[in-house]
Amino acid sequence: MRILILGAAAGGGFPQWNANNENCRRARDGDPNTPAQTQSSIAVSVDGATWCLCNASPDLRQQLEANRPLQPRPDDRVRASPIGAVVLTNADIDHIAGLLNLRESQAFSLHATSRVLETLGANSVFNVLNPAFVTRREINLDTPFAPLPGIHITAFAVPGKVALYLEDTSRKDFGTTSGDTVGLEIRDDASGDKFFYIPGCAEMTAPLAARLRDAPLVLFDGTLYADDEMIRAGEGVKTGSRMGHMSMSGPMGSITAFEGLNVKRRMFIHLNNTNPVLNLNSPERAAVQISGWEVAMDGLEILL
Amino acid sequence: MRILILGAAAGGGFPQWNANNENCRRARDGDPNTPAQTQSSIAVSVDGATWCLCNASPDLRQQLEANRPLQPRPDDRVRASPIGAVVLTNADIDHIAGLLNLRESQAFSLHATSRVLETLGANSVFNVLNPAFVTRREINLDTPFAPLPGIHITAFAVPGKVALYLEDTSRKDFGTTSGDTVGLEIRDDASGDKFFYIPGCAEMTAPLAARLRDAPLVLFDGTLYADDEMIRAGEGVKTGSRMGHMSMSGPMGSITAFEGLNVKRRMFIHLNNTNPVLNLNSPERAAVQISGWEVAMDGLEILL
Repeated sequence: MRILILGAAAGGGFPQWNANNENCRRARDGDPNTPAQTQSSIAVSVDGATWCLCNASPDLRQQLEANRPLQPRPDDRVRASPIGAVVLTNADIDHIAGLLNLRESQAFSLHATSRVLETLGANSVFNVLNPAFVTRREINLDTPFAPLPGIHITAFAVPGKVALYLEDTSRKDFGTTSGDTVGLEIRDDASGDKFFYIPGCAEMTAPLAARLRDAPLVLFDGTLYADDEMIRAGEGVKTGSRMGHMSMSGPMGSITAFEGLNVKRRMFIHLNNTNPVLNLNSPERAAVQISGWEVAMDGLEILL
Repeated sequence: MRILILGAAAGGGFPQWNANNENCRRARDGDPNTPAQTQSSIAVSVDGATWCLCNASPDLRQQLEANRPLQPRPDDRVRASPIGAVVLTNADIDHIAGLLNLRESQAFSLHATSRVLETLGANSVFNVLNPAFVTRREINLDTPFAPLPGIHITAFAVPGKVALYLEDTSRKDFGTTSGDTVGLEIRDDASGDKFFYIPGCAEMTAPLAARLRDAPLVLFDGTLYADDEMIRAGEGVKTGSRMGHMSMSGPMGSITAFEGLNVKRRMFIHLNNTNPVLNLNSPERAAVQISGWEVAMDGLEILL
């Protein structure tokens, strides 16, 4: 199974358009130790010919042009794409806006929970995906489905939050419902190899820990290093937990939460522009690496 | 007045994700004579400090990172942007999807006709533009407004077509209404200099010809070189006129239509991936240049 990291950054990307912190300034100045990253998405293939996108970021067009395996091959027909399926983990803008790039009567299947499909259905802009070519399929939680031949995916609810633009601020949980945020278990039918893609997760629960135990690879929510990082940076008023993300560090953080789970490869993805780990020279980056975690970067390919 | 060409290509950009014509193959191979172009948008400023975007393409994040004047300056606050206003010419995906990048409680004004504002209002994804910071202002046709101090813009209806995803195929004109597509006259208050930005136009009418006569600069719809170009390329079933675009060449084309209008600088923008003019070595490119037209390219800056 081949896994391409299309984008390693959280919503807004890195640098973010209106963020002027040291991280973003370094990236804009071309500091090789603080490389720019596009927004969170991966592509998966078992045959190298047809690919399944997990999430469609606003940077998708740029990501497709940066990754040759996702482009039409020279001997393909005049309209062609190696993309056969798209699977969404929630309705966040950084995970769905890229769908608007996938126009032009190209056949693929689009998989999402009923909650996310409702949002797509309620927004007419997504009608650019011609229904004669793009099949919308509902994901049922904890039920494996095959977006492409040879790949089975199982989506499962993880603690999270409904997308920002759908928040009902009159309710304590902002109207969040099961299925608003899912993680994916992605399995190669032939080899039996599997990995987990969980770009957003608010809490390590006992059932989630049990699910991840002994996994060969987990790509996990790396939005923030510290829960109050955005507030301290002066960039926002929300903690990570308010945004539906557990942090890397701290007693409730993901590094601690994964201890003892025997996950062979742990890799952070979906890093916010404030996260000091984006700077390869930072002490936080060193701490993450010493703890046994890797950090995703645009263009990285993982073979499983 | 400074004008930045953020993107010179039509919807889908160049190369387009699933297009495999010779143009796109050349661009993907890095042919220096067929350079890639992002989707249609320009930025305008009279002071170089604050900028008005005309259209917000799906490639906006990439465009902002490629254009230093549109990035926060090192001594700005931690949240800052030189973008003070966005003006939309229609509700096409290639002109509105970029709004989804302009999140994070940044103040700017958003100007569009009532028809386009209705579409934004009916699509909840655009609620990511926090209404406490982003003011939506209705454009009244033929009535100058000031999106930024020192700049006046007058929007006027041009022959066109409602956005693809809003088409009512039961109606002969697909339900198109005045205000679905507008052109912009953009004027520097101090100098009196002005230019026109018309990325989509289906026909040169007598009133439009009268408006453009003697203009110092017109950026004009360069989608197709020939009306049946997409059909001949095997890329689609629609002519240019079906899509609401007049072509460059031919007796009804824009090169002929501009003859005798005494427009000092004529520049094509919004080029479709099938347009042979994207290849600097093509006979069509030579023909366009011989006729006195220029062709916009990403990164070009015009001083007026």
